[in-house]
Amino acid sequence: MNASFNDTFLKACRGEKTDYTPIWMMRQAGRYLPEYQKVRGNVTFLELCKNPELCVEVTLQPVDILRVDAAILFSDILIPMEAMGAPLYFHEGRGPIFPEPIRTTEALNKLIVPDPDEHTGFVMETIRLLRQELKVPLIGFSGAPFTLATYLIEGGSSKVFWETKKMMFTQPALFHALMDKISQCTILYLQAQARAGAQALQIFDSWAGVLAPCDFAEFALPYVQRIISKLQDTGLPIIYFANNGATLLKLSATTGADVLGLDWRINIGDAIRQVGDRAVQGNIDPFALLLPKDKLRQRIADLLEGAKEAYGHIFNLGHGIHQFTPPEQAKIAIDAVHELSAR
Amino acid sequence: MNASFNDTFLKACRGEKTDYTPIWMMRQAGRYLPEYQKVRGNVTFLELCKNPELCVEVTLQPVDILRVDAAILFSDILIPMEAMGAPLYFHEGRGPIFPEPIRTTEALNKLIVPDPDEHTGFVMETIRLLRQELKVPLIGFSGAPFTLATYLIEGGSSKVFWETKKMMFTQPALFHALMDKISQCTILYLQAQARAGAQALQIFDSWAGVLAPCDFAEFALPYVQRIISKLQDTGLPIIYFANNGATLLKLSATTGADVLGLDWRINIGDAIRQVGDRAVQGNIDPFALLLPKDKLRQRIADLLEGAKEAYGHIFNLGHGIHQFTPPEQAKIAIDAVHELSAR
Repeated sequence: MNASFNDTFLKACRGEKTDYTPIWMMRQAGRYLPEYQKVRGNVTFLELCKNPELCVEVTLQPVDILRVDAAILFSDILIPMEAMGAPLYFHEGRGPIFPEPIRTTEALNKLIVPDPDEHTGFVMETIRLLRQELKVPLIGFSGAPFTLATYLIEGGSSKVFWETKKMMFTQPALFHALMDKISQCTILYLQAQARAGAQALQIFDSWAGVLAPCDFAEFALPYVQRIISKLQDTGLPIIYFANNGATLLKLSATTGADVLGLDWRINIGDAIRQVGDRAVQGNIDPFALLLPKDKLRQRIADLLEGAKEAYGHIFNLGHGIHQFTPPEQAKIAIDAVHELSAR
Repeated sequence: MNASFNDTFLKACRGEKTDYTPIWMMRQAGRYLPEYQKVRGNVTFLELCKNPELCVEVTLQPVDILRVDAAILFSDILIPMEAMGAPLYFHEGRGPIFPEPIRTTEALNKLIVPDPDEHTGFVMETIRLLRQELKVPLIGFSGAPFTLATYLIEGGSSKVFWETKKMMFTQPALFHALMDKISQCTILYLQAQARAGAQALQIFDSWAGVLAPCDFAEFALPYVQRIISKLQDTGLPIIYFANNGATLLKLSATTGADVLGLDWRINIGDAIRQVGDRAVQGNIDPFALLLPKDKLRQRIADLLEGAKEAYGHIFNLGHGIHQFTPPEQAKIAIDAVHELSAR
């Protein structure tokens, strides 16, 4: 680490003292930035994900414009699912579509466990290029197996996850076999990101929150535990984010993750009391960025106060920044976190 | 109450001892029943809601077929919003649509506080007719102001509630004025249901769970408290159900409700420890009805065990029964609750 490298984020992940509370924002490289829209205007979303030079450009944008304390690889959690052999496209309105959902043993057997360097080399190249540019830590990421499985089983996004739960409850062996294969893929994928130069790894469990705690414990948690145990020898801090996961927090604390991401639904102090010696990341409502400046600063001050007993705290939104958020409001929040938390 | 009247549900609401745990299911009168589909095939959803004879017929179906311990008025939470003057229609795929969203003072000022007997007389007539037929208690209901406001502001359902939160955070006075007017309407509407013969009242806060606890406390909770305080002299048990509201439970316990509804995301024992001397209602994952019979019975046994310290417990799903659920699976669950809880 040279003198100009800002390692505040990494220290906070490990529960070390920092001069201020670091902040980054989920989806900080995204549609709310005109600079992103400009890049995205010329290519499809998948083309962007597979073009390392453009991925580097949009990953760097929020670091340069907003002065966040960490960068996160620009990519999509479904990229390795496509590499497993599931055809994928992105519909502008409906989001990701897998036109051939995985609902049978036959369909599952056709999926491969890809070599991440061979099948998703563009991701690793993006990481290598970013490390040459960045003066803040680079976060790599993947989806968590349950979340990835929902997309494969439903054939895309879902409101109620009928097909996923139907498989869990009526064909549990098939469900577990799919989870096992996705987990194998995810372990290799994150290990490759670590080799390429990622300095922390976040596992996004966007849909874990649709599970009852007993089902999370049976059908989702063991796979997250396995993945994280296989990443221990990378030495990188691991962040596990179970979206809408307030009732899963105590179970999430058993994943082995160094940091637990929090969505905005839980009071951060209540969360901290549940997770023991683990850092937390979060958790302002992304839409609260719309508040007038004085109220936004007050809300940030309240959140920092609520987090003062945290083992470590990385400020973040409780979910991705919304596309209609004015970037200047994001900047107000980032400056406020830096200023109000300065020690 | 004559001898053939089953008042187990009402006793459980009040925390009195019962011979077994009563059960009903949210959306028990609905699309999963072929008998309902038959009625619904001849009319639109709104026509059905406004036809007391047909409403009586579909309300009685699950009582007759499944032997649940309570009936719930067949209607929709948006009926009184239409009566306020907001044009409403139901799109088969997209759900309810308000083509003229309420986003300005001018739009708000055009809404009226309707006389429920005059503008929604069909609801009160349905209640009067049902009371002549039923041998189990009849639950009346309304939406909670926050949930109703989201539909009016968004113009229908929403995934992220951008317009609602934008109004909360940037035009709080307008938001509160809308909540105030909806609350006035809701108080009159529920008082009229009580006069017509409803024996318990449930307030559905379907979207409360998108709010951070601090925002729930500021923008939603006071209106629920006001409504419930105005219903105290009806003497009826009040059920408040904040969907996805695990992190709002302690606040929900201040609403004055006799019973707190729980969605499936929270372990029922954890919930009971938070709510004090209040009955709880819930909370099996509706999709767990798909489990094979022995596993379904085991899950119900576990839930009953988890609820044994409850002040009172009404068994229910954690959300409405899904349209593709086989009715015979619902019947297995209902029989299991009755049998396994018998004292």
